[in-house]
Amino acid sequence: MSALFGKSRREAPKDELARNATLLIRGGFVDKLSAGIYSYLPLGLAVLRNIETIVREEMNSLGAQEVLLPSLHPKENWVTTGRWESVDDLYKLKDASEREFALGGTHEEVIVPLAKQFISSYRDLPKALYQIQNKFRMELRAKSGLLRGREFLMKDLYSFHADEADLDSFYERVRRAYETIFKRVGLGAHTHFTYASGGTFSEFSHEFQALCEAGEDIIYLCKGCSEAINKEIFKTGQVCPGCGGKEFEEKKAIEVGNIFKLKTKFTEPFELTFAGSDGAKHYPLMGCFGIGIGRLLGTIVEIHSNDKGILWPESVAPYQAHLISASPENKEVSHATDQLYEKLKSGGSRILYDDRDIRIGEKFNDADLIGIPVRLVLSEKTLLAGEVEKKLRSGDMVEMVKLNGAILA
Amino acid sequence: MSALFGKSRREAPKDELARNATLLIRGGFVDKLSAGIYSYLPLGLAVLRNIETIVREEMNSLGAQEVLLPSLHPKENWVTTGRWESVDDLYKLKDASEREFALGGTHEEVIVPLAKQFISSYRDLPKALYQIQNKFRMELRAKSGLLRGREFLMKDLYSFHADEADLDSFYERVRRAYETIFKRVGLGAHTHFTYASGGTFSEFSHEFQALCEAGEDIIYLCKGCSEAINKEIFKTGQVCPGCGGKEFEEKKAIEVGNIFKLKTKFTEPFELTFAGSDGAKHYPLMGCFGIGIGRLLGTIVEIHSNDKGILWPESVAPYQAHLISASPENKEVSHATDQLYEKLKSGGSRILYDDRDIRIGEKFNDADLIGIPVRLVLSEKTLLAGEVEKKLRSGDMVEMVKLNGAILA
Repeated sequence: MSALFGKSRREAPKDELARNATLLIRGGFVDKLSAGIYSYLPLGLAVLRNIETIVREEMNSLGAQEVLLPSLHPKENWVTTGRWESVDDLYKLKDASEREFALGGTHEEVIVPLAKQFISSYRDLPKALYQIQNKFRMELRAKSGLLRGREFLMKDLYSFHADEADLDSFYERVRRAYETIFKRVGLGAHTHFTYASGGTFSEFSHEFQALCEAGEDIIYLCKGCSEAINKEIFKTGQVCPGCGGKEFEEKKAIEVGNIFKLKTKFTEPFELTFAGSDGAKHYPLMGCFGIGIGRLLGTIVEIHSNDKGILWPESVAPYQAHLISASPENKEVSHATDQLYEKLKSGGSRILYDDRDIRIGEKFNDADLIGIPVRLVLSEKTLLAGEVEKKLRSGDMVEMVKLNGAILA
Repeated sequence: MSALFGKSRREAPKDELARNATLLIRGGFVDKLSAGIYSYLPLGLAVLRNIETIVREEMNSLGAQEVLLPSLHPKENWVTTGRWESVDDLYKLKDASEREFALGGTHEEVIVPLAKQFISSYRDLPKALYQIQNKFRMELRAKSGLLRGREFLMKDLYSFHADEADLDSFYERVRRAYETIFKRVGLGAHTHFTYASGGTFSEFSHEFQALCEAGEDIIYLCKGCSEAINKEIFKTGQVCPGCGGKEFEEKKAIEVGNIFKLKTKFTEPFELTFAGSDGAKHYPLMGCFGIGIGRLLGTIVEIHSNDKGILWPESVAPYQAHLISASPENKEVSHATDQLYEKLKSGGSRILYDDRDIRIGEKFNDADLIGIPVRLVLSEKTLLAGEVEKKLRSGDMVEMVKLNGAILA
């Protein structure tokens, strides 16, 4: 920690209202460059990469293939779909020769003409392509920290299918993959499959809404099952499409993912067609499936935190354990803590070592703020007993563990 | 390969002049969205990630810490350094409330105010921070494929030092790390440490120039040592700063990296100071160190290719071996090839399996175009002998290897 870039701060940043950004800035995870625009410091990047890995694993399990698409989109592509004019939050820019570009806030305008080059027969279908890439959206208000960014990392998956049955079955598989992702990042118990507006081409789209007071969405949670309905489509006398239930509870929630049947909405304007097994030309049916990686990080903090700081779920924590020397001025203790650090590291554990020469109370406060799941403390007393003190961030119980035993098991 | 997104193309794209982009597009590695703006398909992304991993490992060896900075930069930051007006290739945009932003083409304007929050004492120095992140530059001409992008992935490293001696010693360490990187990606023999213009604050900056006819730079290569001088600073009667030699050869080259002593050029305008061990306030001295990841990929293709296609160095190749069934219509051969594929994969090898039902000649052409280092072919004849045919992309020799032996050893 003496070398780590990014220090904990006692005071909350003055211009942040959101709990997620306040804790993440205080803990040295992120820094705010401008409203809705954040830099990731090493601790924050470690969490981001852990989330990315989980998302990537589940996308690969679906057979989806990873690509990386540009952010500078020629205006023509957005004119083709009519969205150059209709999308409010599109950043637009001109180059020196007055050519116009959009900054990608979503990537249908790029992925569809790209897919068009490689899809011409039913034999080329289905295809599922995803990326983890920066998005830009000109949000008028960006006051929710990482929950609503002007620039943010997103996983977007686009799928192409020969017929409705194939789209439907892939859609269900993505739904399960999303449930697995939210479970793996520690939001399983909080996240509800939610019916939302379907737009022109489908009755519904579906969202994954994590219950949270900081959420900007309002959902009606069915008391009969665990599904919900977004307020935007909730009608009087509404029946739950999941179980037929009629009793709901109004809740605030954060949209952590959405899945959508685009059908031919984008394949038509780009004239992406394929020759079917019947010999005739058809438009592939598309699905699109998004997860905001930065928003997910922010949501985890909103939900897994208390007054003292963050409580990272193990799966995404930047380190497994936070090691503290209670008496760095005592050479024996400090030496033993160094040794323990090397031992745990060489055993493959990811350890954050607070080797700083500051008061122990400050170290404890920082450990609570940073929120690594396990705290290990070595002091004169524990060293005499050949032990190290182990405490979970999520509890108050302190356990003594033998230094020569399996400390993190 | 029957499922892979991105197909090989027999014909060169009409609007590409650059060899690197032509081969990469024909091989299904990248796609051109607009001049200087490329999408990475799965094969291309695999190469990109391999290069990133090598660069990241060498940055981490230096003790540099990874961060991730935004692309949307508030105008004020660029006004502070005077570069809002002076940098020609800066993309500028306005949001709905007329607030202006630059799209980051470099990140001094973000990293320095960020570092200012955490550097206040000599005890906080040195610090080295890097990122692998998208850059945007409004190039007037973008005709060199991946060698000069309008949007491109770059590794940029920024360091902060208490004194000149510390900057100098870190600068030398980065120079060695860069040499290691270029060696590891297969450009070691081609790349020359080159003296270039130093700007206001230093006598020289240094470039790493890879000899290549497609290069946009001209360098004078010293005949006495392996160092070079960029034409922009080459004077009549020039003496080699490396060895004192006076004989040079004029060569075209691609700038694959540059290292630069910024000193206080950016810490002064942002008033980033630290309290020295002498108690007085000082400006930290900065170094900055760049490698274009996409350009490096393009350079590897320019240098490691022939008329038939690419010859990827093992270290960055998207797969280790390209497995071909010579008679997919023969059930026994096709079954044996499937088995070999599974065996190699489960042994941890990365294999591209051409399971497509097309002519063998086409498969061979595609294997040469895609350029994976090892080609494995199973046919009726080799199967009868219990063998597989092994050929290196870099040679003509064909070797027969026992199917039950160590095939890729």
